Amino acid sequence: MQCTAFDTPQADALRVQSDALVTVSGEGQITAVIARDDPRWATERARHAAAGSLRELPEGSYLLPGMVDLHVHAPQWPQMGKALDVPLEAWLQQNTFPLEARYGDETFAESVYRPLVQQLLANGTTTAMYFGTLHDSGNRVLAEQCLRQGQRGLVGRVAMDEPSQCPAFYRDVSAQVAIAETEAFIETVARLPGNAHGLVRPVITPRFIPSCTDALLEGLGALAQRTGVHVQTHCSESDWAHQHVLERTGVTDAQALHRFGLLTRRTVVAHANFLTPDDVALMAQVGASVAHCPLSNFYFANSVFPARSGHAQRMGMGLGSDISGGYSPSMFDACRHAITASYALDEGVDPDLPAAQRGRHDARIDHVFALWLATAAGGQALDLPIGRIEAGQQFDAIVVDCRTPDSNVCVWPDIDSPADVLQKIIYNATRSNVAQTWVQGALVHRRAAA
Amino acid sequence: MQCTAFDTPQADALRVQSDALVTVSGEGQITAVIARDDPRWATERARHAAAGSLRELPEGSYLLPGMVDLHVHAPQWPQMGKALDVPLEAWLQQNTFPLEARYGDETFAESVYRPLVQQLLANGTTTAMYFGTLHDSGNRVLAEQCLRQGQRGLVGRVAMDEPSQCPAFYRDVSAQVAIAETEAFIETVARLPGNAHGLVRPVITPRFIPSCTDALLEGLGALAQRTGVHVQTHCSESDWAHQHVLERTGVTDAQALHRFGLLTRRTVVAHANFLTPDDVALMAQVGASVAHCPLSNFYFANSVFPARSGHAQRMGMGLGSDISGGYSPSMFDACRHAITASYALDEGVDPDLPAAQRGRHDARIDHVFALWLATAAGGQALDLPIGRIEAGQQFDAIVVDCRTPDSNVCVWPDIDSPADVLQKIIYNATRSNVAQTWVQGALVHRRAAA
Repeated sequence: MQCTAFDTPQADALRVQSDALVTVSGEGQITAVIARDDPRWATERARHAAAGSLRELPEGSYLLPGMVDLHVHAPQWPQMGKALDVPLEAWLQQNTFPLEARYGDETFAESVYRPLVQQLLANGTTTAMYFGTLHDSGNRVLAEQCLRQGQRGLVGRVAMDEPSQCPAFYRDVSAQVAIAETEAFIETVARLPGNAHGLVRPVITPRFIPSCTDALLEGLGALAQRTGVHVQTHCSESDWAHQHVLERTGVTDAQALHRFGLLTRRTVVAHANFLTPDDVALMAQVGASVAHCPLSNFYFANSVFPARSGHAQRMGMGLGSDISGGYSPSMFDACRHAITASYALDEGVDPDLPAAQRGRHDARIDHVFALWLATAAGGQALDLPIGRIEAGQQFDAIVVDCRTPDSNVCVWPDIDSPADVLQKIIYNATRSNVAQTWVQGALVHRRAAA
Repeated sequence: MQCTAFDTPQADALRVQSDALVTVSGEGQITAVIARDDPRWATERARHAAAGSLRELPEGSYLLPGMVDLHVHAPQWPQMGKALDVPLEAWLQQNTFPLEARYGDETFAESVYRPLVQQLLANGTTTAMYFGTLHDSGNRVLAEQCLRQGQRGLVGRVAMDEPSQCPAFYRDVSAQVAIAETEAFIETVARLPGNAHGLVRPVITPRFIPSCTDALLEGLGALAQRTGVHVQTHCSESDWAHQHVLERTGVTDAQALHRFGLLTRRTVVAHANFLTPDDVALMAQVGASVAHCPLSNFYFANSVFPARSGHAQRMGMGLGSDISGGYSPSMFDACRHAITASYALDEGVDPDLPAAQRGRHDARIDHVFALWLATAAGGQALDLPIGRIEAGQQFDAIVVDCRTPDSNVCVWPDIDSPADVLQKIIYNATRSNVAQTWVQGALVHRRAAA
């Protein structure tokens, strides 16, 4: 593909590859990114043009890495953007759990998961780490939809068996059953027809410590250690959750997860606002990562995850939409909210406090850091070769068209540098700007022309 | 028009008028909203159908009041979404002032203001209160563009003459000249061909106290008192600005503006984060309003405007995009950021503080309050009959289509009530969902069909 590509090899480094040739193998791996002034550029371009395999992006379109969404509650898709005005307890018990309980019905599951995968691809999300439900059938439908539509999916069979926290109509009958079904789901995903390359992967998914018994957490931890598959859960999200785990286990969430064997190089914990310095050091040492969900931080977490300082301490992290605790399916929105949240943390928010007592002044991130979170950092968190436009990475990418009629990305060629254009994209791109979505070298979504 | 209409007669009251008939006079005023069970419904509908003047919204489309954006820096349009990662001083001196200084060139002004008005209409903004520049020609072009494209525009000739704060290349030569030119611009707008109904109005616009001499503020205050036209300025936005005015005048921004005669029923002050309780009482007494700009609060204001408590104290307010201090031209975005900002203020943001020291717990607003801010409250702030779907109001409205191919508003008819649909619209609508924009009974924008 002949294009100008933007990516972020590091948290604070924007790379602009202008009018480059990105070559991709038959298996969907990037084999080379050839710069315009490289002698091979003209010959490679001519070779692809002759073979009919040259694609050229038009003026005003740019290649970006595909977006990696580290935290999506797939079954909550139908309630995205509603019930955000009710207390958390009502949100869970009256909206969320009754909805999640419906996914034993395969027809219903397909009616939700088909558009979910489709719409996330349309928004530019090439990889999603999904919480499913307790239902083998529904989770299989989700995995199949990812495979069928070509999205890189990490799909978790949710486990939750603690009677004091889970409603009777939506709870594992025992730790033993939950562990066995999780193991069976790992097998199911491995054997899905067409999944030989591992486009879809299973995830061990205890909902969070409060909703799981020790026996369940121990069993899932042993499974994680034995199989090496990914792990996801929630961690130290709210004052309540953080305190609850401290009281129950005597240690923090992160330390308890570690003790249960659930903190691995392939673990992603959502939120993690209230990590202690020891927790951060432990996460960094183990190589586990945080799914930073800035939007739901505002709504449900009583505080903002300090991404900047966590990164300075070498902890892994990426970005999550947290659908439907977060209302937006767009990772561009997640980037913007990550920046906004970091400014709120940095500057403080309450005008009635004296300036000296407002903010912590170590927290700001910018649009480059946000793009890194949503792409390269997400790939790193998942231990997958995605998130950058360079040789050896999978070709998971999106084409952003700044000239589509519905675009709020307003570029002024005489005053905007390429870096300015990228900033304007991060601040104003919507799904209308996502012209094409590519996963592992395959075009999996193309926006209908206006 | 036969449609289901959503609006907010009060801050916390959502009104759903299902399958109603909205009738509009030739002058663009709503003459009646006839409920489905009203005996007149069928006869009125038949009459309009026979006359060929019946419009029916399709399933999945809804009528909302047009959006009122109380704070737009028109000349900053080309830099929307960039330079947000540089310090305020650099943003002003290296980006903003040099750009604003270019609008003496009418050709350049038209190249910016034509798409600006067009894009705001496409985003659903039916009324905008604009800061222009110091240039009579550029400001006239902006007023003409509003008139030509049918946007309700309040356009201000910016005044700024304080040498210590304004660069030599972009500053009024004297208070006298700035006052005379402001007065001339009021005349210019009144005489614009086609503006007999006052679709476009002039605004007295001292940039903010720090950039104006006392002589200028006094002169503009006298002009405001004499003419009764609208006034706009910035007020108590940042620690620096608030402190600077206190030191220079011995009183707060709001009190100083009042003393200069600039605080009237038709005054809109932007930001106003740091109003004191006395300021709020003064504003409420005078009937002046705040343009709450939640997005730029995060970036430039060192804190968040407490909208909930200001409203409880009966102070007028509405919502502003603050382009380009705010990066988004969408008032749906402004609604969302107003909610997010209110949650940050309510809950606090810093996880290292004990829970008891975090947040103020009087600040939350929801999507209904946010819609009210963006519509009815904005109309009230401007002293104009806009912002609600009811008899006597101007027909300034938008049609929101939830079924457009690029929609992230995902409605599930079997689980979503009309109120849920409205919540989903507020949380996920983008300009792609704005199918039609109406101002004073005229269709001024129609989205191109996909």
